[in-house]
Amino acid sequence: MIKIGIVGGTGYTGVELLRLLAMHPQAKLQVITSRADAGTKVQQMFPSLRKHVDLAFSHPDTAHLEDCEVVFFATPNGIAMQQARELLQAGVKVIDLAADFRLQDVASWEKWYGMSHACPELLAEAVYGLPEVNREKIKAARLVANPGCYPTAVQLGFIPLLKAGLIDSDNLIADVKSGVSGAGRKAEIHTLLAEASDNFKAYGVAGHRHLPEVVQGLSLVQGTQVGLTFVPHLTPMIRGIHATLYGRLQRETDLQTLYEQHYAGEHFVDVLPAGSHPETRSVRGANCCRIAVHRPQGGNTVVVLSVIDNLVKGAAGQAVQYMNIMFGLPETAGLNIVPLLP
Amino acid sequence: MIKIGIVGGTGYTGVELLRLLAMHPQAKLQVITSRADAGTKVQQMFPSLRKHVDLAFSHPDTAHLEDCEVVFFATPNGIAMQQARELLQAGVKVIDLAADFRLQDVASWEKWYGMSHACPELLAEAVYGLPEVNREKIKAARLVANPGCYPTAVQLGFIPLLKAGLIDSDNLIADVKSGVSGAGRKAEIHTLLAEASDNFKAYGVAGHRHLPEVVQGLSLVQGTQVGLTFVPHLTPMIRGIHATLYGRLQRETDLQTLYEQHYAGEHFVDVLPAGSHPETRSVRGANCCRIAVHRPQGGNTVVVLSVIDNLVKGAAGQAVQYMNIMFGLPETAGLNIVPLLP
Amino acid sequence: MIKIGIVGGTGYTGVELLRLLAMHPQAKLQVITSRADAGTKVQQMFPSLRKHVDLAFSHPDTAHLEDCEVVFFATPNGIAMQQARELLQAGVKVIDLAADFRLQDVASWEKWYGMSHACPELLAEAVYGLPEVNREKIKAARLVANPGCYPTAVQLGFIPLLKAGLIDSDNLIADVKSGVSGAGRKAEIHTLLAEASDNFKAYGVAGHRHLPEVVQGLSLVQGTQVGLTFVPHLTPMIRGIHATLYGRLQRETDLQTLYEQHYAGEHFVDVLPAGSHPETRSVRGANCCRIAVHRPQGGNTVVVLSVIDNLVKGAAGQAVQYMNIMFGLPETAGLNIVPLLP
Amino acid sequence: MIKIGIVGGTGYTGVELLRLLAMHPQAKLQVITSRADAGTKVQQMFPSLRKHVDLAFSHPDTAHLEDCEVVFFATPNGIAMQQARELLQAGVKVIDLAADFRLQDVASWEKWYGMSHACPELLAEAVYGLPEVNREKIKAARLVANPGCYPTAVQLGFIPLLKAGLIDSDNLIADVKSGVSGAGRKAEIHTLLAEASDNFKAYGVAGHRHLPEVVQGLSLVQGTQVGLTFVPHLTPMIRGIHATLYGRLQRETDLQTLYEQHYAGEHFVDVLPAGSHPETRSVRGANCCRIAVHRPQGGNTVVVLSVIDNLVKGAAGQAVQYMNIMFGLPETAGLNIVPLLP
Repeated sequence: MIKIGIVGGTGYTGVELLRLLAMHPQAKLQVITSRADAGTKVQQMFPSLRKHVDLAFSHPDTAHLEDCEVVFFATPNGIAMQQARELLQAGVKVIDLAADFRLQDVASWEKWYGMSHACPELLAEAVYGLPEVNREKIKAARLVANPGCYPTAVQLGFIPLLKAGLIDSDNLIADVKSGVSGAGRKAEIHTLLAEASDNFKAYGVAGHRHLPEVVQGLSLVQGTQVGLTFVPHLTPMIRGIHATLYGRLQRETDLQTLYEQHYAGEHFVDVLPAGSHPETRSVRGANCCRIAVHRPQGGNTVVVLSVIDNLVKGAAGQAVQYMNIMFGLPETAGLNIVPLLP
Repeated sequence: MIKIGIVGGTGYTGVELLRLLAMHPQAKLQVITSRADAGTKVQQMFPSLRKHVDLAFSHPDTAHLEDCEVVFFATPNGIAMQQARELLQAGVKVIDLAADFRLQDVASWEKWYGMSHACPELLAEAVYGLPEVNREKIKAARLVANPGCYPTAVQLGFIPLLKAGLIDSDNLIADVKSGVSGAGRKAEIHTLLAEASDNFKAYGVAGHRHLPEVVQGLSLVQGTQVGLTFVPHLTPMIRGIHATLYGRLQRETDLQTLYEQHYAGEHFVDVLPAGSHPETRSVRGANCCRIAVHRPQGGNTVVVLSVIDNLVKGAAGQAVQYMNIMFGLPETAGLNIVPLLP
Repeated sequence: MIKIGIVGGTGYTGVELLRLLAMHPQAKLQVITSRADAGTKVQQMFPSLRKHVDLAFSHPDTAHLEDCEVVFFATPNGIAMQQARELLQAGVKVIDLAADFRLQDVASWEKWYGMSHACPELLAEAVYGLPEVNREKIKAARLVANPGCYPTAVQLGFIPLLKAGLIDSDNLIADVKSGVSGAGRKAEIHTLLAEASDNFKAYGVAGHRHLPEVVQGLSLVQGTQVGLTFVPHLTPMIRGIHATLYGRLQRETDLQTLYEQHYAGEHFVDVLPAGSHPETRSVRGANCCRIAVHRPQGGNTVVVLSVIDNLVKGAAGQAVQYMNIMFGLPETAGLNIVPLLP
Repeated sequence: MIKIGIVGGTGYTGVELLRLLAMHPQAKLQVITSRADAGTKVQQMFPSLRKHVDLAFSHPDTAHLEDCEVVFFATPNGIAMQQARELLQAGVKVIDLAADFRLQDVASWEKWYGMSHACPELLAEAVYGLPEVNREKIKAARLVANPGCYPTAVQLGFIPLLKAGLIDSDNLIADVKSGVSGAGRKAEIHTLLAEASDNFKAYGVAGHRHLPEVVQGLSLVQGTQVGLTFVPHLTPMIRGIHATLYGRLQRETDLQTLYEQHYAGEHFVDVLPAGSHPETRSVRGANCCRIAVHRPQGGNTVVVLSVIDNLVKGAAGQAVQYMNIMFGLPETAGLNIVPLLP
């Protein structure tokens, strides 16, 4: 059993991590910290966890995170970078579900996240945790940065095209739609049911923090800097991301075969049959990205549809996937969950 | 491994049964029938089951259900009663998720369901499958009738009061609210998103099929015929039933202790701390009934709040629970699922 | 044209009031105040009002509310009572959409609202604004208190029964369900879409502020103190209240005729044909209460279904209805709105 | 008062037309036909229309549509073309809310709609009813074809760019999202609340009927044949369309000024301030298209956001707008509706 600590855990990625770890055969949740809720039983905050999680939140100052083998940060941006160094020195592996270690470029990180980085030297060491790209590096990693939810869906969708050098990489378009849980469990007006329900809108068209992250990832795959227009939208549902990706084809190929072969060995990426339209609910609660590739009217624009559950393959599930890889467990341990439908 | 057959399986209780059986350690799904969809792969109809269910639907005429150890009927009312006799004679156990064997009284059944009963002699044998009441009978049963979703929530909520003889049983009130999946996966106008969303209404106030079933169950517990006003409502959500139950107290007692003691040994009934308000999402996807008991302003009206997931504890999950009991497995086998929240 | 001021106006009752007044033929919105948003154009906060409302929010200290003929308070509880006295002295009529003047009993008000009342002497003068009960008093009123949303639906539903002395008034039950806008436009976690959507729960079963208000109103109609069990629920929709009311019949009558006759002259109360189930969406955006009365299985429990739009007949629409009455306009002026369906 | 007939009227565009006409100062609804529901009162089917519409549905064979001045067809595709010729000969103007007269090219129409066209000679006469483009033609028209809902949002969004010759018109992209009412009031499984709620998906990526219509309209504006990739999505809300449009800039300009000037005189197109993100709810129930134009990171991709209520500016409202134009009324008559928010 792997001894596990969680920092944070009162937000949506946190409660999802608790759900997944409670069903994981090798996970022993040892400590969970929360400054604001120290002393409160986890199940009191989340009655869905009654009979599954018996722990109470500990105060960060008295929790012995250094006794864990791995610590997950399910915290707002800027927390993990304060504590990672010390934990790593104590021999604890660290998985950050927030953004602290996602960008390699410190200046870019500081510009998009609006704060100084507390441990830039760890950025170089941190492994960007997309197992379908970085599985080998994750095996050896001490510190893994969870990709953002949008970046997971977008990168998995675009990568086969870029790897094959098929499209005009200067003019990629990602039109992405997210359920409201992506905004977190925070008291805000614009995500109230009475505001966000029966409504649809774009946001952050001028610039969204996930843009540099996607550009970084796709540029690494492509070998040159890609150009990307990234337009996020808020859609009135709880979970789910749907990325609709557009690229200009530069030469002919069998797109369906390309995608099927690229992801042939991947358990958590599912290429649907030609002509399919993946639904976000088809991955609800599961660590899975479903993809379909289209070429409407046989034109030169390729359209890729990519869906994930933002809290699972886009956050907590992918984080457990690294844990499995980092500790030599079967990659699917605890993650063989059937999506909840309807 | 238990060899399992499913008749039906293209509706919501069917796909939920498939989800639960796919995660059950002792279940081997051997055959699933559908007249309309014979030959179609299950995962083609429900992409959420890709990599989890590889079977195709068989035509009922050529499927060898008699080779199964247990057959679930996830069919409309009136189907199971046509086929149950033959299967039982072949030594196959039968679990009906529809209403064919729920009422003991043939005349009442025929009145409420508007058809002649095809095997009234089996009504006497059929066990009504509420394990918290009939566990011993289920152990020995060949034929189990799944309670309706509303009846499950209402009976589990009222039973401790009636068992204790605490309330005026002539004037019970059950104000019940259901998500739209309770209406089934049927092409109908009134359950379209554009009709049922952002809307709330009562229906069937003059009389609902679950009324005689609840009255039957509560009267058995009470020992005399109870009087019940039963008002169902449609609420704009996918899953979940919330029963708000009202009874007039006839003598004093510690209601919280009564409920906690009554359900002390039950794994799938969870009595919440005093003052709680169970949410339907706290049982989403899980085989669990959460209950809270209130006595507002210390008056003589007791208010019980009881929630279930209509497709799990109200249908497929409870059905798997009988299977576990009937085959001597741990009652929780395959059912130790953490609810999906948010 | 009536010169109108609004205090508050950044919440849901406020924006609804702005919508209704913008379509009112006799209304001239002269000033709207907001301490936090002074200087901001109303339409910047609510783009739905572009081309309809050109005003900016004024700072309360510099707004000349005393130049208005009527001032609406669409503020949190406790604001109107601070300013009402001065406005009344300046000859301005006051309509409070919050709770400051709803309860006649100061001690009760202070207990339920947790603050001292700033002008108890005005409580005696304030008219409780349910036109179907208090039309004559409203005509002459300087200060009108808008009923709560639940109290409007519950009182309009119960009143014909109580007026006729038909039911056991010691044991009334109101099982009420509200859309999320009833909680206001406030940054809170429990009303986030990701929390409240696909979910149903009761709340405040131990005691809700609308309980004493309903008891006050019904007791006045009945002539003696009534007993009421009041259980509110949160339902995942934006607008709408559905009250399901239960009473024990004490003698026979034709309930349908009773209701139709009671509300025969009322433009904004619509008694549906026998056997109907009113939907909340059938009044969406409209100043209307639709009611159906049932007697299930001919028993002695009467079930009344009563629906309103909580922001219109339950708040801003009813407030405009008083204004019409107070200023001698046709009661339907500006309120003859067709509900928005679907 | 204009004497009006409606053919159809039991679907969503029909009930919306009834709502708008009931509030129109110059409209006299004289007859409404429905084969299936002849004899039924309209308000029995749609209780939201009680006190507003007193008519019953007439049988098409006995209704005297020829006594009307204008007849609206709110029918499935293929009905209006059967009856238009006769009505026009009787001097009745015809407005078709379906697709029968949207495409100028008969062969294309027959390919996309899968039936023979019953009156191809009228296609030449029919005016495509986008007033912002065809106002003068509509004034003189006897027969107007209502644009589809998607085509309205997409064309209004792209037209200023194309008119100004600013973008690469061979590679336009329209990523469009629709609420579920766009699928009509039809008993179908995929639009059930339990299927479409908490879910997001693309559909018809291989080819959607609105594609040739948009291409026809934009090509007329551009003067040459445009190339368009058109990807529709279903989003879990009742009303609303959000079009996200992408084009490659070919030369510099001030986009904000371009849009503001282009639509300066239009009452029903609202160009939002720079940096805005229009929400679909900001036009709920109103005959309005709100548009924002962006150029993310100053790159060469222009992003246009365009929202409408699919049932109003995308259907019934726009149809009333033509009626106003055709009969010399103020274009805003009956259409000065404030959107319903929240």
